[in-house]
Amino acid sequence: MIKRILALALAFPLGALPPPALAQNGEVVRSERANFRLTTFASGLERPWGMAQLPDGQLLVTERPGRMRLVGRDGALSRPLGGVPQVEAASQGGLLDVALAPDFERSREIFFCSAMLVQGGALTRLTRARLAADGAELEAVTPILDATPAQSSGRQHYGCRIAFGADGRLFLSTGDRNVDRMRSQRLDDLAGKVLRVDREGRPQRDNPFVDQPGARPEVFSHGHRNPQGLALNPWTGSLWLAEHGPRGGDEINVLRPGANYGWPVVTHGVNYSGTTISERSSAPGMVDPIRVWTPVISPAGLAFYDAAAFPGWRRSLFVAALNSPGLVRLTTDGDQVTGEERLLFDRRIRMRDVLVAQDGSLLVLTDESDGRILRLAPG
Amino acid sequence: MIKRILALALAFPLGALPPPALAQNGEVVRSERANFRLTTFASGLERPWGMAQLPDGQLLVTERPGRMRLVGRDGALSRPLGGVPQVEAASQGGLLDVALAPDFERSREIFFCSAMLVQGGALTRLTRARLAADGAELEAVTPILDATPAQSSGRQHYGCRIAFGADGRLFLSTGDRNVDRMRSQRLDDLAGKVLRVDREGRPQRDNPFVDQPGARPEVFSHGHRNPQGLALNPWTGSLWLAEHGPRGGDEINVLRPGANYGWPVVTHGVNYSGTTISERSSAPGMVDPIRVWTPVISPAGLAFYDAAAFPGWRRSLFVAALNSPGLVRLTTDGDQVTGEERLLFDRRIRMRDVLVAQDGSLLVLTDESDGRILRLAPG
Repeated sequence: MIKRILALALAFPLGALPPPALAQNGEVVRSERANFRLTTFASGLERPWGMAQLPDGQLLVTERPGRMRLVGRDGALSRPLGGVPQVEAASQGGLLDVALAPDFERSREIFFCSAMLVQGGALTRLTRARLAADGAELEAVTPILDATPAQSSGRQHYGCRIAFGADGRLFLSTGDRNVDRMRSQRLDDLAGKVLRVDREGRPQRDNPFVDQPGARPEVFSHGHRNPQGLALNPWTGSLWLAEHGPRGGDEINVLRPGANYGWPVVTHGVNYSGTTISERSSAPGMVDPIRVWTPVISPAGLAFYDAAAFPGWRRSLFVAALNSPGLVRLTTDGDQVTGEERLLFDRRIRMRDVLVAQDGSLLVLTDESDGRILRLAPG
Repeated sequence: MIKRILALALAFPLGALPPPALAQNGEVVRSERANFRLTTFASGLERPWGMAQLPDGQLLVTERPGRMRLVGRDGALSRPLGGVPQVEAASQGGLLDVALAPDFERSREIFFCSAMLVQGGALTRLTRARLAADGAELEAVTPILDATPAQSSGRQHYGCRIAFGADGRLFLSTGDRNVDRMRSQRLDDLAGKVLRVDREGRPQRDNPFVDQPGARPEVFSHGHRNPQGLALNPWTGSLWLAEHGPRGGDEINVLRPGANYGWPVVTHGVNYSGTTISERSSAPGMVDPIRVWTPVISPAGLAFYDAAAFPGWRRSLFVAALNSPGLVRLTTDGDQVTGEERLLFDRRIRMRDVLVAQDGSLLVLTDESDGRILRLAPG
């Protein structure tokens, strides 16, 4: 092994590592609970960020520079959909997540999330639209929620995952925007939060801070840094959230209404420079994460595996990871994590999102300029 | 006036300013509501920090390096009292405040506050003792409360004022210790708080966080930075607190049980380097100060003027200020500040504490290596 690493180091000096690639298309990869066949289902996507599967099997995929496409059942990309508004595609911003309305089959409604430039600066925006019958464009495009206030400096930490709760209500994660990290702790500010709204973007009457003077009624939970993973645990009904730590301190949190997840008052991470953010990782009145990664993996998309194709993966949560790139499989029991397996980490492919497809295969978006959809299917 | 400044500037170039001094002992100073005679009542105190007046008129005074003395009615200093424990007299630490028990006349009990070195580092400690009948030493010296956890690095921001509430319960202010400023926001940590205890140092049953798992039951209020002034408003029964901001953002706060005063999630100040701590000075769920100073004055001791000697000063709060040094007189109405007058700012004398004496004069401790007690008496 050491010889092999040395040989690689000699063959590929710093800055000239071999390109990330699948060893061969269709190879079978062995793992703890399942062997799977790994294929490139689609490619040619520029920095894809979020995806959803339509009832007909097609995939709706966002590209961060501001495009949305359908990917056919054969992996072919459509032309960019019409009607997508111009987004703020700078630094970490752009067109980010997309989700289908629970009644999509009837309503054709979708929700997407993006960085937007408005008076005063940039912010995270949630937009509702209707996918035209021919799938070529978006109609009735309606911004429904802006994570105000806009921030003039900095184009990072937008958060921006969308999920529906067990009761059909819409949740949106927002990041702290990485300039004034205290935004996460302030309840009159929609940065660094998870928000709960209806399909018009209106806060829910039973949201935890609706009766607190000055607090934004959309807030469901607070004290988040940059949450890019959000998924409904189908067995417990809880929402699980993944958030990026700074240097150290990536977290998985189980969301409770009104809870404070602590950033930056408590964290397992430190500043990139190595200086202290907080000497403590836990405090009364703040909820501890159920999983922490130090060093970081940079968790992005989440997907609970509830399909039949891989019986060994039932009750697993898959985490798409950008640094220490690969796919993490967490075994779960109720709202706890009981184990971890790392898949495909030897490929060094940054993974942004993961989805359980209708056929029980796993689909993974790679964060690359020539981004791909990888497919993990029974092999 | 300009000529005089120029003459002074020529006579005392930078670094050679004239020593802080009273123009003449016994001079009469005119001010908005009263003229007062300014005298040096005592001198020869090294960095005096806190004082209390005994029923017989003597003053009990602390010196930061670790001594306590009585100052007679003639201004003469006693020898250092015996029985004072060794304190951590480094940087901002040392022997700090002192207060008499409400029943001192009967019990002879006093309470003092100091920086102490313990296993793990330094902390703010509250100690009870009895002043011997002859006034020469402390007896039954008993530490009753440590503002844990101890901190290994840094010797700043101990807070350390003691006050009794209208109901006779003891309040102690503690600073954030200036290394991990998030300590102020964490309820399992006694730094950056106001604590409410009985005379044994035990938390009160009706303290606001006694039922919160993990929270320290001593906590009365939180989110403070470095509170060095604490006094009972005799007309409203509220406790008023003064705290040092960083660069900008000194505050006066009116204390409410369980309230969060925001440091460092919200502040009017910035880092000494000029970088941002928080872009906001206010947030829902956090209590705004009733007075802010930017640039700072560095408020230390507080005293409400409730005596008869200066009728024009009734309902005023006096604030001893260390930077922009002098004495600030705030007019108050209920729990609000209605006006401000600055006294003796032209003397450039750092003032650490202020007391309304039994005869209605004001006594001020100067923060100097040859520290004085100044007396402001009707003139």
